[in-house]
Amino acid sequence: MRKNRLEAFSDGVLAIIITIMVLEMKVPHGNELAALRPVLPVLISYVLSFIYIGIYWNNHHHLLTAAKGVSAAILWANLHLLFWLSLFPFCTGWMGQNQLAPVPTATYGFVLLMAALAYWLLQRAIILQQGRESLLASAIGSDWKGKVSPALYLVAIPLAFISTWLSNGLYILVAALWFVPDRRIERALEKHGD
Amino acid sequence: MRKNRLEAFSDGVLAIIITIMVLEMKVPHGNELAALRPVLPVLISYVLSFIYIGIYWNNHHHLLTAAKGVSAAILWANLHLLFWLSLFPFCTGWMGQNQLAPVPTATYGFVLLMAALAYWLLQRAIILQQGRESLLASAIGSDWKGKVSPALYLVAIPLAFISTWLSNGLYILVAALWFVPDRRIERALEKHGD
Amino acid sequence: MRKNRLEAFSDGVLAIIITIMVLEMKVPHGNELAALRPVLPVLISYVLSFIYIGIYWNNHHHLLTAAKGVSAAILWANLHLLFWLSLFPFCTGWMGQNQLAPVPTATYGFVLLMAALAYWLLQRAIILQQGRESLLASAIGSDWKGKVSPALYLVAIPLAFISTWLSNGLYILVAALWFVPDRRIERALEKHGD
Amino acid sequence: MRKNRLEAFSDGVLAIIITIMVLEMKVPHGNELAALRPVLPVLISYVLSFIYIGIYWNNHHHLLTAAKGVSAAILWANLHLLFWLSLFPFCTGWMGQNQLAPVPTATYGFVLLMAALAYWLLQRAIILQQGRESLLASAIGSDWKGKVSPALYLVAIPLAFISTWLSNGLYILVAALWFVPDRRIERALEKHGD
Repeated sequence: MRKNRLEAFSDGVLAIIITIMVLEMKVPHGNELAALRPVLPVLISYVLSFIYIGIYWNNHHHLLTAAKGVSAAILWANLHLLFWLSLFPFCTGWMGQNQLAPVPTATYGFVLLMAALAYWLLQRAIILQQGRESLLASAIGSDWKGKVSPALYLVAIPLAFISTWLSNGLYILVAALWFVPDRRIERALEKHGD
Repeated sequence: MRKNRLEAFSDGVLAIIITIMVLEMKVPHGNELAALRPVLPVLISYVLSFIYIGIYWNNHHHLLTAAKGVSAAILWANLHLLFWLSLFPFCTGWMGQNQLAPVPTATYGFVLLMAALAYWLLQRAIILQQGRESLLASAIGSDWKGKVSPALYLVAIPLAFISTWLSNGLYILVAALWFVPDRRIERALEKHGD
Repeated sequence: MRKNRLEAFSDGVLAIIITIMVLEMKVPHGNELAALRPVLPVLISYVLSFIYIGIYWNNHHHLLTAAKGVSAAILWANLHLLFWLSLFPFCTGWMGQNQLAPVPTATYGFVLLMAALAYWLLQRAIILQQGRESLLASAIGSDWKGKVSPALYLVAIPLAFISTWLSNGLYILVAALWFVPDRRIERALEKHGD
Repeated sequence: MRKNRLEAFSDGVLAIIITIMVLEMKVPHGNELAALRPVLPVLISYVLSFIYIGIYWNNHHHLLTAAKGVSAAILWANLHLLFWLSLFPFCTGWMGQNQLAPVPTATYGFVLLMAALAYWLLQRAIILQQGRESLLASAIGSDWKGKVSPALYLVAIPLAFISTWLSNGLYILVAALWFVPDRRIERALEKHGD
């Protein structure tokens, strides 16, 4: 029961984050096609963030499927993850309204990195609760995606001062890695017939 | 179970889209009735978008009733649909704040068209998952509304440069076509006694 | 099942309306207590609207409890009600930012009136669906509150041009009438042992 | 059933409050790291408010677990609590955008105080409904946290005119007191095997 409410609350927050990001796309003053040009980078960063939140929403769901109940650690690890995700609209707007300038692009990468770490912490909290023979621990296995992603963000952040296109390329690459929903947890659950 | 969460998340996003559109109706500075005049076209475009989101919410619900589970394709086809619908507040505000000027009206039609295609893709993804004897495929039949709507949008977009009233008339016509909730899927489900 | 989703969607929209109204309370520029003075009328109109949405949320819940299923008429009557309620943030902001000036106060009353009519229409749609021996029809009985409220709004709207305090007094009076949750429907349901 | 809807509605409102607060972090105009400096105090007050809403969400859930049904008093006590919590985005933004100036800091404390009183009122309303041998009453026991918190707010409000850092220190202290989820109610429920 408590898990259901945690899921519902998280779903609500994620649904709001993914939607209010669009408010950063300010209605342009002109009414010509040219008036849309400054909106374009905001739209591009919006698309990227939309996909990221979509991925987090999907994986978050899988992660909680594996959890049995909600400990204080899980509760706060979850809110901590939502906190970093809630900074997406701000970072998306800042990066987009500055034509993908270096500092906003690096800041965007920093928030991506923190969200990835928060996700990892939530994963840890659930495994800790399940104890030694954690189903989740065996399901995620070596978790190479979870290890490669922060590494790529760490490369992308300083890279923003050389080329923001390369940074954004790396952000897109990580999104592509996670694009296909992760079926590890589902499969492990099915095997246990639970 | 997973379908429930997809529905709940989609409902949340649609509820937010339909409500934050009203934020584009900026509180006027004067306190006379005349101060409401520039708000009027925004209100009109808000009403149109409100009806469109209402229609999508209703049909989306029927569509998912027919789905058995959630594949990766359905998941992303659904997020893709939500993405285009999330651009409604922006387009509604742009069209309304420019007294239904040609380019914003055509842009609005473009987003309507993309949402219609996204809806069709989601329908495809569900049919694909159900395989050959898809209940949904037989329920929607020839799907004339689904074919006529994009065609009408395609006509309405260039028409905006001749008369924005004609374009908006076509947008209203399509909304009217879909206004009565679609009972095809319900009926097909009832027949199968499921 | 369909009714559940209608309720959940309506709850979502009402939760968003009640919360985004607070966004009309713009953060003042000064940091002295005097800077809060222009916010005060916005806060007052926010409190009034908050109570109104609270009342609608509560009664809406009771009304739907009585409905058996969702017809097309109920669906659109419900969206129609949500539409008028969604204009509350705009009207609340306009009235509040203009120190309760006559035209914004009358406009606020007009939206209250339309919401009351929309609520009555929704009630009608549910009774119509239930047919002759409608449980809801007998539960609401003479519905004196439902008849007195629009009458009071109709008085309050022109009164705004004489004294906005009297209009607002009437708005508060109607809210007070409905403040105690309506137990008629609950009692009728209990009697039927359903 | 009614309790479920009250919970769902409250969850929705809390999810929106916690998320729209981030809208007060206006995207800065510059694209240098220095442009983030004025955002910093807003971010800090956002973090504090995020934790507070997280704590309220968690405790609110526990409180309602103990309630049997929803009386009119509970309904309005709950909306009253949500009202004060809905003022968090405004106060957070005001405090943050003024570098934690005295009046905004004291106002923030006042809203914290009112929210604490509203929470206490909701607790009272539930105990009243349960009658003499209230499970909730025995679960919360002496409720020292519930008594100490308002006292600390009362100290922090005037203190803001001496040092806003001390006030904010007290706000953080209260948050720390409540950080660990309250297990009293859970334990009492478990004992009763309910």
